[in-house]
Amino acid sequence: MFRKIAHIGVAVNDLESAVELFKKLFGKPPTDFEEVRDQKVKTAMFHFQDCAIELLQATSPDSSIAKFIEKRGEGVHHVSFIVENISQELERLRTLGFQLVDERPRPGAGGYDVAFVHPKSTNSVLIEISQQRLPAGRQVSRGDE
Amino acid sequence: MFRKIAHIGVAVNDLESAVELFKKLFGKPPTDFEEVRDQKVKTAMFHFQDCAIELLQATSPDSSIAKFIEKRGEGVHHVSFIVENISQELERLRTLGFQLVDERPRPGAGGYDVAFVHPKSTNSVLIEISQQRLPAGRQVSRGDE
Repeated sequence: MFRKIAHIGVAVNDLESAVELFKKLFGKPPTDFEEVRDQKVKTAMFHFQDCAIELLQATSPDSSIAKFIEKRGEGVHHVSFIVENISQELERLRTLGFQLVDERPRPGAGGYDVAFVHPKSTNSVLIEISQQRLPAGRQVSRGDE
Repeated sequence: MFRKIAHIGVAVNDLESAVELFKKLFGKPPTDFEEVRDQKVKTAMFHFQDCAIELLQATSPDSSIAKFIEKRGEGVHHVSFIVENISQELERLRTLGFQLVDERPRPGAGGYDVAFVHPKSTNSVLIEISQQRLPAGRQVSRGDE
């Protein structure tokens, strides 16, 4: 089940100058900076109550953010949702015929496991689903939910 | 001041089929349908706690949504924020050098007055700012805030 919208990911060419610009726009600075090596990006997060804007700069030319900008230019890259159980949700979406980018969850920013649904399935909106990463060895069971 | 993210607007060719698809994706139906004559769109809203996904279909070929789809295809069209005082915020953004689409607020969906900041100013993200419309004749004063 899709519980809430976690953030909107925005692809930018230069994180430093984008942070300065959005700081002026929003009237406040970002709270978190992070490099996500698995996705070859560095990020800055502007939180608004329960939701956030995540600026993303590629750290390598083969990052999906670099490829996105090359094809479409800067702008909104994805919308991220918190789900209750990411593996169950991937299975539910696969069964319903949605095209998945990731068959299994992988590490994302902020201690979350993430997976993407292909925008071809969803009116050209790249959807990320995410779930807080559990400590190693711990599995979700009915008692945890 | 930007208080919270209200919704993410998604431009679609056909509202009815997009609603069916996102209903399957999210596992729940939209809660509000509305036609916004001023903006020549019809909309469906999927709420998630404090934030929402707004699907938008043009009701006329000269709607900005029709032009957006013609140029870029379907996908995320804008990100909407709630601000405390939309007129003050427009003035603040103008002073800071942001390029405004609307010099004054105009009627949007859900009983809000809205104004857009041009994506040229904001790394190609179309930003909407919005404030709940006040009853006619009532003005914001210090005591209302």
